[in-house]
Amino acid sequence: MENRKIKDELIYFNNVVNFSSTSLRNVPTREQAKWQRKTVVTLALTFLTSSQAKLIVWSKRAGKYEYSVTTANFLVETLKCALSLAALARIWNSEGVTEANSTTLDEVIVYPIPALLYLVKNLLQYYIVAYVDAPGYQILKNLNIISTGVLYRIILKRKLSEIQWAAFILLCAGCITAQLNSRSDHVLQTPLQGWIMAIVMALLSGFAGVYTEAIIKKRPSRNINVQNFWLYIFGMAFNAVAILIQYFDAVMNKGFFHGYSIITTLMILNHALSGIAVSMVMKYADNIVKVYSTSVAMLLTAIVSVFLFGFNLTLAFFLGAIVVSVSVYLHSAGKLQR
Amino acid sequence: MENRKIKDELIYFNNVVNFSSTSLRNVPTREQAKWQRKTVVTLALTFLTSSQAKLIVWSKRAGKYEYSVTTANFLVETLKCALSLAALARIWNSEGVTEANSTTLDEVIVYPIPALLYLVKNLLQYYIVAYVDAPGYQILKNLNIISTGVLYRIILKRKLSEIQWAAFILLCAGCITAQLNSRSDHVLQTPLQGWIMAIVMALLSGFAGVYTEAIIKKRPSRNINVQNFWLYIFGMAFNAVAILIQYFDAVMNKGFFHGYSIITTLMILNHALSGIAVSMVMKYADNIVKVYSTSVAMLLTAIVSVFLFGFNLTLAFFLGAIVVSVSVYLHSAGKLQR
Repeated sequence: MENRKIKDELIYFNNVVNFSSTSLRNVPTREQAKWQRKTVVTLALTFLTSSQAKLIVWSKRAGKYEYSVTTANFLVETLKCALSLAALARIWNSEGVTEANSTTLDEVIVYPIPALLYLVKNLLQYYIVAYVDAPGYQILKNLNIISTGVLYRIILKRKLSEIQWAAFILLCAGCITAQLNSRSDHVLQTPLQGWIMAIVMALLSGFAGVYTEAIIKKRPSRNINVQNFWLYIFGMAFNAVAILIQYFDAVMNKGFFHGYSIITTLMILNHALSGIAVSMVMKYADNIVKVYSTSVAMLLTAIVSVFLFGFNLTLAFFLGAIVVSVSVYLHSAGKLQR
Repeated sequence: MENRKIKDELIYFNNVVNFSSTSLRNVPTREQAKWQRKTVVTLALTFLTSSQAKLIVWSKRAGKYEYSVTTANFLVETLKCALSLAALARIWNSEGVTEANSTTLDEVIVYPIPALLYLVKNLLQYYIVAYVDAPGYQILKNLNIISTGVLYRIILKRKLSEIQWAAFILLCAGCITAQLNSRSDHVLQTPLQGWIMAIVMALLSGFAGVYTEAIIKKRPSRNINVQNFWLYIFGMAFNAVAILIQYFDAVMNKGFFHGYSIITTLMILNHALSGIAVSMVMKYADNIVKVYSTSVAMLLTAIVSVFLFGFNLTLAFFLGAIVVSVSVYLHSAGKLQR
């Protein structure tokens, strides 16, 4: 077991060295394959996330969820778990059970932590609405861009250049600008309790993301499907507990699938696939790429809405989109100078 | 005369070389003095410009100018001209009339060009209001940030790094964001003629600024007060023509100084001093510094208004201010990498 850890460390170290030296020599085929994989998972995440917001809105009827949201979350985790297991079964069939596609107990004990953090964050969501209205909450959620950057630096000890930090501040400012509307200024009247809760939620969400990356990256030789399986099984467990606490009566009286529609099914499918894409991005890229990917997805959602629903884009949206685009450019320009 | 030109070229070349090598060795006292002069004129411009907007608003009564604006412009040019001449007289007294503090006819013939460009731009201002409302015009005016950058690159052939270009786009987006209000979206409905006029006006204004810098920098050994005298004398002349065309009747019937108040006098004083500060920035820094300086002044004006008049700052203002601040940082960070 000690040997495997050393092997993992070595592979990880090699990856880092290979990655940082790509700008100095010709990119070899292995690096190209890695870069391609990184690009594919990032694009998949962006594409899936951009349709997510619309499906959530569509799944409501007259502005209300007719299904229990927690049952949908539970099904998302179950579906992801099933997909990981199916992928794993295929691998076991072809390669047999090896060190790379199985796991040990000491490895598993940390997997509940991200699921638990997300659960606490989701519970806080029910309390913050007492202090902030919905558009205000939408704006405050962008604080997790900053918290992710800070925790990424502290926990994963990966450095961002000064230009990249500037880009990250711009990403946050640009996302908020793009979402501005006539009622946005209300958020400035948020009481101190609301701000504290918003910051705590941003930290929880950032910490969960960064911690997941730490778990996944700690053993780079481990197959992603094994890692996902454990992440999702605990996601299922915690959501099951949440259903019992919050929706037990509703589920008992109206049934588990009450209020479900085709849109709900599509939404669950989309969430499950984008959840897997997030894990892939954590494995083959990092949290910073994830944050950029979901921010760009937010802009794409708005642009698609113009064509599908005839929404008008505001001047604030254009300005936010320009700032986000410059931020994306600066993030990669800042990387080259290292 | 050929000799003087060569001397000028050499001094200019030396300045450029000295400036770009400052990061490589200890900054000598001469460089320090230059840097100090640059800082002082930049701060003076920022300070004077930030009080300018308020004085213009104060000089109105019930939202209207009671004085003819062109007579005020004429007095601003006259005051600047008088101040330059006074400074020049002092220099002539102490140093005598030398090559550095006098001028030749072939040099003077280009000085009317900036004044003419500004006049055309100011005349266009009367026509653009048919297509754009006042807040929209305020927003479109920020286009001259971009036009100044582009013309600075093309005419003065001075390079900006890619990071500095990104910073410049951010400066424009940030300034517009900070000025957003509930009626800003109207600007998106501006008809094509309005956009064309706004772009032409931005180009005229950018061209006038860059051309002034080119004139002033062409002969770095020439005393700034000589250069200013010629710039301002043509400003006086063109404004006198404008008074004759537009306000002849009003001036004849009500008198030249009709509707003037203490505030109008303060405003003229402020405009004259900031006009001189602009020339100084062109001489000792450049148009890019001028644009940054006036953008930061715009933010300061808004912040001062909060304390003086109890205005509320909007979320858009904060976001714009963050983007402008990051842009200022990136402009200097981008410089260091050259």
